Amino acid sequence: MIGRFTAGIGAIIRDNGRERYLIVRRSETKDFAPGVWECVTGRVHQGEGFEAALFREIKEELGIKVRPQFILGTTHFYRGEINPENELIGVVFYCETDGSHKIRLSVEHSEYRWVRPMEASALLSKRSNPTENWLIRVIQRAELVRNLLSSEQLYVLGQEGFRLDR
Amino acid sequence: MIGRFTAGIGAIIRDNGRERYLIVRRSETKDFAPGVWECVTGRVHQGEGFEAALFREIKEELGIKVRPQFILGTTHFYRGEINPENELIGVVFYCETDGSHKIRLSVEHSEYRWVRPMEASALLSKRSNPTENWLIRVIQRAELVRNLLSSEQLYVLGQEGFRLDR
Repeated sequence: MIGRFTAGIGAIIRDNGRERYLIVRRSETKDFAPGVWECVTGRVHQGEGFEAALFREIKEELGIKVRPQFILGTTHFYRGEINPENELIGVVFYCETDGSHKIRLSVEHSEYRWVRPMEASALLSKRSNPTENWLIRVIQRAELVRNLLSSEQLYVLGQEGFRLDR
Repeated sequence: MIGRFTAGIGAIIRDNGRERYLIVRRSETKDFAPGVWECVTGRVHQGEGFEAALFREIKEELGIKVRPQFILGTTHFYRGEINPENELIGVVFYCETDGSHKIRLSVEHSEYRWVRPMEASALLSKRSNPTENWLIRVIQRAELVRNLLSSEQLYVLGQEGFRLDR
């Protein structure tokens, strides 16, 4: 059966100078996964594409601009109970920043940290939360891409953006 | 407003030995874009993720297996009139094959060709159809990636698949 979905984006952001990834903690008041560490995430609005949602969410949640350079992968999970209303399908973008912008968290998040992959694993793996385990895998995949591709290759891949709209 | 979407996949498939891309022609009986050239496309079923839909659609439409190695970009368009019911959000995968499998088209398509990028542009650009213009851009982006990355890099990127499910 052709599905109907909520769509989501994830953005894992690397500060190239400091070689660290940004993680943010969901506010205790959130309906889904309160108090949990994640990367920037958000749901796509009606009429938006993935990339428009990506830029909007980063601006809303952090107040900064970043360069999306690679599509790391896709996500698929249920935001709560397993039923079509909660079914979310999404795309995770690898983004870079030079770290010169000051982060201003929205009410969505209570805290942020810039962490190395090992620190992220140490912090998150103890907690056995699905979102935090997911974040560890996202950072691991980001590191794989960062180590495999040159800065020049990443620049070219991200240069025109990722929109292939009809 | 949080959107509800139909989700889609596109798969542009390159035969590495012959350095050609597969294009398929939509059957004249299709409700959307009949008779038009495209790559493999399909809508995600309820309960599937993007990658499961990718493998299912390729099997159904071509009867072959391919190696997804890269996510080229995202799509966003209306499958007909502009309203939320027709709004489709999707992911386009770059896939490779060694060309040893015999293609068996389903009733969805009437014809297929293996074409070089220049041939695709020459064939499709005259027709000024949005889906065919999209296909030209998809093939151009596939060529950019193919020329930028080594076979080894593409292999590593595709090795574990693209699922980052929670």
